[in-house]
Amino acid sequence: MKQWSQFLAPYKQAVDELKVKLKGLRVQYELEDTHTPVEFVTGRVKPLASIYDKTLEKGIPFEPSTELAAELPDIAGLRLMCPFVDDIGTVVEILRQRKDLEIIEERDYISNKKPSGYRSYHMIIKYPVQTINGEKTIFAEIQIRTLAMNFWASIEHSLNYKYEGEMPVEISHRLERAAEAAFQLDEEMSQIRDEIQDAQQYFSAFKET
Amino acid sequence: MKQWSQFLAPYKQAVDELKVKLKGLRVQYELEDTHTPVEFVTGRVKPLASIYDKTLEKGIPFEPSTELAAELPDIAGLRLMCPFVDDIGTVVEILRQRKDLEIIEERDYISNKKPSGYRSYHMIIKYPVQTINGEKTIFAEIQIRTLAMNFWASIEHSLNYKYEGEMPVEISHRLERAAEAAFQLDEEMSQIRDEIQDAQQYFSAFKET
Amino acid sequence: MKQWSQFLAPYKQAVDELKVKLKGLRVQYELEDTHTPVEFVTGRVKPLASIYDKTLEKGIPFEPSTELAAELPDIAGLRLMCPFVDDIGTVVEILRQRKDLEIIEERDYISNKKPSGYRSYHMIIKYPVQTINGEKTIFAEIQIRTLAMNFWASIEHSLNYKYEGEMPVEISHRLERAAEAAFQLDEEMSQIRDEIQDAQQYFSAFKET
Amino acid sequence: MKQWSQFLAPYKQAVDELKVKLKGLRVQYELEDTHTPVEFVTGRVKPLASIYDKTLEKGIPFEPSTELAAELPDIAGLRLMCPFVDDIGTVVEILRQRKDLEIIEERDYISNKKPSGYRSYHMIIKYPVQTINGEKTIFAEIQIRTLAMNFWASIEHSLNYKYEGEMPVEISHRLERAAEAAFQLDEEMSQIRDEIQDAQQYFSAFKET
Repeated sequence: MKQWSQFLAPYKQAVDELKVKLKGLRVQYELEDTHTPVEFVTGRVKPLASIYDKTLEKGIPFEPSTELAAELPDIAGLRLMCPFVDDIGTVVEILRQRKDLEIIEERDYISNKKPSGYRSYHMIIKYPVQTINGEKTIFAEIQIRTLAMNFWASIEHSLNYKYEGEMPVEISHRLERAAEAAFQLDEEMSQIRDEIQDAQQYFSAFKET
Repeated sequence: MKQWSQFLAPYKQAVDELKVKLKGLRVQYELEDTHTPVEFVTGRVKPLASIYDKTLEKGIPFEPSTELAAELPDIAGLRLMCPFVDDIGTVVEILRQRKDLEIIEERDYISNKKPSGYRSYHMIIKYPVQTINGEKTIFAEIQIRTLAMNFWASIEHSLNYKYEGEMPVEISHRLERAAEAAFQLDEEMSQIRDEIQDAQQYFSAFKET
Repeated sequence: MKQWSQFLAPYKQAVDELKVKLKGLRVQYELEDTHTPVEFVTGRVKPLASIYDKTLEKGIPFEPSTELAAELPDIAGLRLMCPFVDDIGTVVEILRQRKDLEIIEERDYISNKKPSGYRSYHMIIKYPVQTINGEKTIFAEIQIRTLAMNFWASIEHSLNYKYEGEMPVEISHRLERAAEAAFQLDEEMSQIRDEIQDAQQYFSAFKET
Repeated sequence: MKQWSQFLAPYKQAVDELKVKLKGLRVQYELEDTHTPVEFVTGRVKPLASIYDKTLEKGIPFEPSTELAAELPDIAGLRLMCPFVDDIGTVVEILRQRKDLEIIEERDYISNKKPSGYRSYHMIIKYPVQTINGEKTIFAEIQIRTLAMNFWASIEHSLNYKYEGEMPVEISHRLERAAEAAFQLDEEMSQIRDEIQDAQQYFSAFKET
């Protein structure tokens, strides 16, 4: 257990630091009285049980190692929830400009949703942690989603957990329809937003004449 | 300033304690592998500038006093965001059973939305804070909403702030339509949920035969 | 593991709540511009490995149970560090007045230090946690010490850990002398404090004539 | 007020990040079962009232500006408390190796205590904060002290505050004697530590023959 604690320590530290950093974004937007593209932020270190499952799946030894670190780039995980679909692009751009992390992979499961219906924007980053034994660079995964995408993903997660990967066709169909409905939710949210913004612009234009 | 800091200290303490307590609910649900009716929790002490505005509105002196404490029961404010409309009732019930706070008023702006379109469930509670000078009971407000209600409320809040209460009719109409759409969002969320639950029950029933 | 997580959850919750509550004491003293008898506060849930060791020692089964909860009243542990020996009495008094916990035992290892040289003030309390399944009252231990007592205790702890209870006589003698020196430290701290207070009073008296 | 909030936001962010980072040191040492040179960490943004006092003292305008930022490098302040005097050097070395901050000045008020008796190790650092408007590098001050130095400094601080800089000679003499005693405390702490370490080595050597 001790070995695992020491192996996981820089991941825990990275998650703690990144949570404070990403939550800070929200505060900055609020101070500028502008729309805040981040609703809330969560973070976690992958539980040992899930690391174990992953090593079985990938056929690698379950022991703290460089190989394991490379094969499981999501041991440290952060998630940002956005109010609107358009906010995701804003957040991605903001993350690309940060100099305290290096993005090494981006996967856009929003433009290209997974067959299951899963939608989310994923980034794998390299993040340097300063330890008492010098700098240690670790991988971390950042997921960026709307709240509707997040609902859907958590429903899918619990169903997968329940059926252990062998989901009955009936459930699986309903889940697809739910994914479709979640997509509609996001569309409607965007319309609400556009409508309000139009109204503001219309009124501003009117006032200036 | 010092006087205000001392006056506000037990409110700050109450908010810190209640945030830890209410966030704890989420952890407990997760451990039971059951649906979690609380998505996230926020808390704040009303900023001095807003307290000042409220005293003007109510025509009471802007000074730390028992009168001010009684007239502004929302100096300490907590907010719980729920995934589904039905979760709000669950959370209300859980709060009613707590023995560390006393509910002294409930307002259901969900069954009876405000003319503006605002929907949310409000509670005023009495909460005892243990201080170095003995127990001090303060008022706090707890708001319980879905995420869709929360979006709408934050849009309304910023528009009100922008137009300082004198919102043009055009904007106001659009805001009503937005409130209607937010309501539809919640309806659809519920349908997604019901559909998944039906599917699960259908399959369980099928499996047992 | 799941069973243990659920068993330990209210202890974790209690530690989180009590940390916020006890740290709040410090803030309150600072706002009153008076001497702060609490330097810092720590808290922890007893690690499973230590719970296991204790069950061996006590000859009880290592499983989540009411018996285990009763036999190990320090699963939830809080520690308050005080600048001066006299502050300990102040903190004890403040804790006795709190209405959100019930003290069921006090042990004064300061007036009566343990044979090893250990000095600290211990309290076993009952603390009600509000859970989603109703109120659950748990035991917790609060330790109150000066910083010098804390240094000594942490040295003793690591030596005990190293020698697994069979400390060589030589080490044990040095540890006694260290305990004596730590006691002297506290005496000197008190003298510094008294000296400053005398000076203040002397000067105040002088000024008033 | 808004302008000040925006000006101070990156300082607040830096303090939050550095607190998480420096507290992490402690956890890392604990995992290695070795002596932990950091007892606890505090941080704060300088209150506006103190910033105001400093601008008067320095004869610069009280307004958010680059000049003010340059003249007051301690708007963001972190403090690390160490158990032993020797730990301070260890912590300084650890901070020098970090790549997420740049040390631009070090002042050793331990080798060269201030005339008042003040002892502490000060660093001014440059720390980059990633904001929504790009990277912003701010100054911060890190103070490293033993607990005895910290006691003395807080006593001096409150006396200075009380006498507003015009401390009576009598008090001032006592404060010097207190500083001397605080120094003695640190010496004795070191002796306890050396004694224990000697004993451990003596015993280890004995065991190996």
